[in-house]
Amino acid sequence: MPVGTQGTVKGLTIDQVRATGAQMVLSNTYHLALRPGEEIVRQLGDLHAFMGWDGPILTDSGGFQLFSLAQMTRVTEKGATFRSHIDGSLLELTPERAIAIQEALGSDVAMVLDHVLALPAEPAAIRDACERTIRWAARCKAAGTRSDQAQFAIIQGGLDPEMRVWCAEELGAMDFPGYAVGGLSVGEAPDDMYRMLDAVCPAMPVDKPRYLMGVGRPEDLLQAVLRGIDLFDCVLPTRNGRNALAFTDAGPLRLRNLKHQLDRRPLEDGCPCPACRHSRGYLRHLFMADEMLGPILLTAHNLTYYQRLLAEARQAIAEDRYRSFFEQKMVGWQRSGEAA
Amino acid sequence: MPVGTQGTVKGLTIDQVRATGAQMVLSNTYHLALRPGEEIVRQLGDLHAFMGWDGPILTDSGGFQLFSLAQMTRVTEKGATFRSHIDGSLLELTPERAIAIQEALGSDVAMVLDHVLALPAEPAAIRDACERTIRWAARCKAAGTRSDQAQFAIIQGGLDPEMRVWCAEELGAMDFPGYAVGGLSVGEAPDDMYRMLDAVCPAMPVDKPRYLMGVGRPEDLLQAVLRGIDLFDCVLPTRNGRNALAFTDAGPLRLRNLKHQLDRRPLEDGCPCPACRHSRGYLRHLFMADEMLGPILLTAHNLTYYQRLLAEARQAIAEDRYRSFFEQKMVGWQRSGEAA
Repeated sequence: MPVGTQGTVKGLTIDQVRATGAQMVLSNTYHLALRPGEEIVRQLGDLHAFMGWDGPILTDSGGFQLFSLAQMTRVTEKGATFRSHIDGSLLELTPERAIAIQEALGSDVAMVLDHVLALPAEPAAIRDACERTIRWAARCKAAGTRSDQAQFAIIQGGLDPEMRVWCAEELGAMDFPGYAVGGLSVGEAPDDMYRMLDAVCPAMPVDKPRYLMGVGRPEDLLQAVLRGIDLFDCVLPTRNGRNALAFTDAGPLRLRNLKHQLDRRPLEDGCPCPACRHSRGYLRHLFMADEMLGPILLTAHNLTYYQRLLAEARQAIAEDRYRSFFEQKMVGWQRSGEAA
Repeated sequence: MPVGTQGTVKGLTIDQVRATGAQMVLSNTYHLALRPGEEIVRQLGDLHAFMGWDGPILTDSGGFQLFSLAQMTRVTEKGATFRSHIDGSLLELTPERAIAIQEALGSDVAMVLDHVLALPAEPAAIRDACERTIRWAARCKAAGTRSDQAQFAIIQGGLDPEMRVWCAEELGAMDFPGYAVGGLSVGEAPDDMYRMLDAVCPAMPVDKPRYLMGVGRPEDLLQAVLRGIDLFDCVLPTRNGRNALAFTDAGPLRLRNLKHQLDRRPLEDGCPCPACRHSRGYLRHLFMADEMLGPILLTAHNLTYYQRLLAEARQAIAEDRYRSFFEQKMVGWQRSGEAA
């Protein structure tokens, strides 16, 4: 899912988002509740009408933003109080309120409110946040009133595999229509993340979508798919695109590099995105001249790259050759794009 | 012509530029010569390949940027020396060099180098700049080597109608394939500009395109068309779009205004642009949240608005009802969009 934090995938019109191959987009409860406010979005016809996106939308609950963005967050059993990162006003987010906001937004998938911790954390703190996440999930479920909105639960548990498994089993018993693995990709080593997926994926329901939140690099996606993950969101393709980094099968290209100045090649042969109808030399010029079109084109390219990568992964799975697909991609990325 | 100063219409992919209805785009000799350098553009396959635009391109000669942007510009008969606005390096632009750069860029229409003055100016200074502009036009003509590139001459003359007519006649006798009126829209009152067009247009060849440089507001365009102008360029639709101002038949809308917060209407009924598939409330949100998509969508809308306006003007001329079309538009704009 491309990330449309504030009801827009940064830099792209909604038609351009669709053209990347995206089938579903993510938006953020925390951001939209602060600005413009979920009631404004509802009165403008819900988040689909607001963004002009007729496909499925998943909204994050705000749990991660309370951890990463809000100021002076204080968590109690009732919920979290925090200060807005926009104007410093004091606000409260409870499980019930997180669901009410997402129902007003009208997303297709709402995430339960979870308690996210910085890693590493003490076992007692991990257990406490994990238990609270489970109790909050039950409250979210009870608070839901829209039959046209699915709630996904979020498995926490830090870097403790037993806690992860326990959390997955507890939430699994509550029969949510989908499950997410949260609280990863917060600074831990990739191998720690893969180790957690090794532990938790076998404990997740086999017949429900599995969503790894906030991940990640192309290699992280394929590593996670290998372990049974179905769904992802990440700002990496968009944020890195705005910062002149393009993903390719030969590894990342940094477009400000002088070596691209006279390069007539596209970023990636055969890529159908609008960036790849230009030369690398032109894309470099756009970044050197601080032109908006540089970030726009690299955002379109990177989202297209991610969508094509996962489309290829689905195809490889369907043809029972995922392992060889995976290894081939890994070799390509390790060549390093700067050598291309 | 949408303005693509640095080889990109700010904020739009080239497909989006095409979708506004634009048939021809402008780019700038001064900017491209400084960055990335015309030789880089040429090696990447010329300006058409660089931008991905297969329609006609007009390049401005740099005369206006020497006046508006360069630092410490000093004009002699040979040419102009100036300091780059990017890095302060000392550079020279002569008529011959202006043509050589434009030939390297490979534009379809090259502008001669002219001597632009700030207004108001003394009669002697106006006459001096005007005579120099004529001599430089002759040097540009002599310097041209590409049979696939048309040179347009630029009529100067400040706010002196006799000087304008004299300049038009002198340049007219030199048989350029097109003529521009330059040195206007530099801060003078609109009526002064219309007065100059009243004087100069009848002195311009009837069988050559007439181009009013750097103009302007929608009402300026229709006033100029009334006086016989065919071609325009202006940053107003793009720059104002980036600053949250949308042009409509009911006058400009300022999208940051609170009144748009819950407005479900598009900017303009029947407008085919991507902005008009969203509500005014959504567009306001994008600007309030500092999202790139706000400037992008309003740029697309404003360029579409300008293209539709001039398409309607052409149709009205063809049907011999331009005067009533003109008056109807003027009445609409004077209603002021903020009342809409």
